[in-house]
Amino acid sequence: MSTTDEQQIHQIVADWMAATRAGDTERVLGLMSDDVVFLTPGNPPMNKADFAKASSAQAASGMVIEGRSEIREVQVCGDWAFVWSQLSISVAPAHGSRMERAGHTLTVFRKQDGRWLLARDANMLAPVGNKPAQG
Amino acid sequence: MSTTDEQQIHQIVADWMAATRAGDTERVLGLMSDDVVFLTPGNPPMNKADFAKASSAQAASGMVIEGRSEIREVQVCGDWAFVWSQLSISVAPAHGSRMERAGHTLTVFRKQDGRWLLARDANMLAPVGNKPAQG
Repeated sequence: MSTTDEQQIHQIVADWMAATRAGDTERVLGLMSDDVVFLTPGNPPMNKADFAKASSAQAASGMVIEGRSEIREVQVCGDWAFVWSQLSISVAPAHGSRMERAGHTLTVFRKQDGRWLLARDANMLAPVGNKPAQG
Repeated sequence: MSTTDEQQIHQIVADWMAATRAGDTERVLGLMSDDVVFLTPGNPPMNKADFAKASSAQAASGMVIEGRSEIREVQVCGDWAFVWSQLSISVAPAHGSRMERAGHTLTVFRKQDGRWLLARDANMLAPVGNKPAQG
């Protein structure tokens, strides 16, 4: 029984979270296309080399990043797909306070040689914190 | 000579900017699907009714929103397409200071009854301002 494209994309997202949690940069890099583009607010677009550098530095510092992704929508069209997710991440530096971020992502996946790879990622995560007290 | 899908999508983006500049909410609403979803950092997803309400309120207040979009990439797959853009907007309230925002968008378009409509939009615009002085 073969898995559907949608099931494969769900699996890629789960693998991404597990590899990120483990600090396994090489494994995460293997889940994205060579021409990947990461878009975030207030920053220039990040490419695969930028991602590799940032991810390796985080792993080397002992930072642990745990993510939980709830996929809200998957649309597959041939060798392209887009996925809308609600993502929560918890960033625990080796020293210092844990930070929580949450929000939505809109991600484009592309199928290459039979495998789905992350190709474009719009990340709209914002810090989660206690609201300032009123009055 | 018929226009290509890519040309049609460029035209939709140009129409969107012109209608927004004119405060023509009805025209902007005609460029999006009924199930449209707008994703932004720090906010819940916004649907068509939410957009209509916010846009009408902005127009009624005399606010003028001017946008400039530079399309970086268009990928068409059948009746779906995604577009990565660099967007700058200038928001001029009837009273008060002009605000500038800039950043990237990742947008999914869907073709319905032969017309491309905006269906999912990830907006990563951030305020543009003077950097704090160093030292």
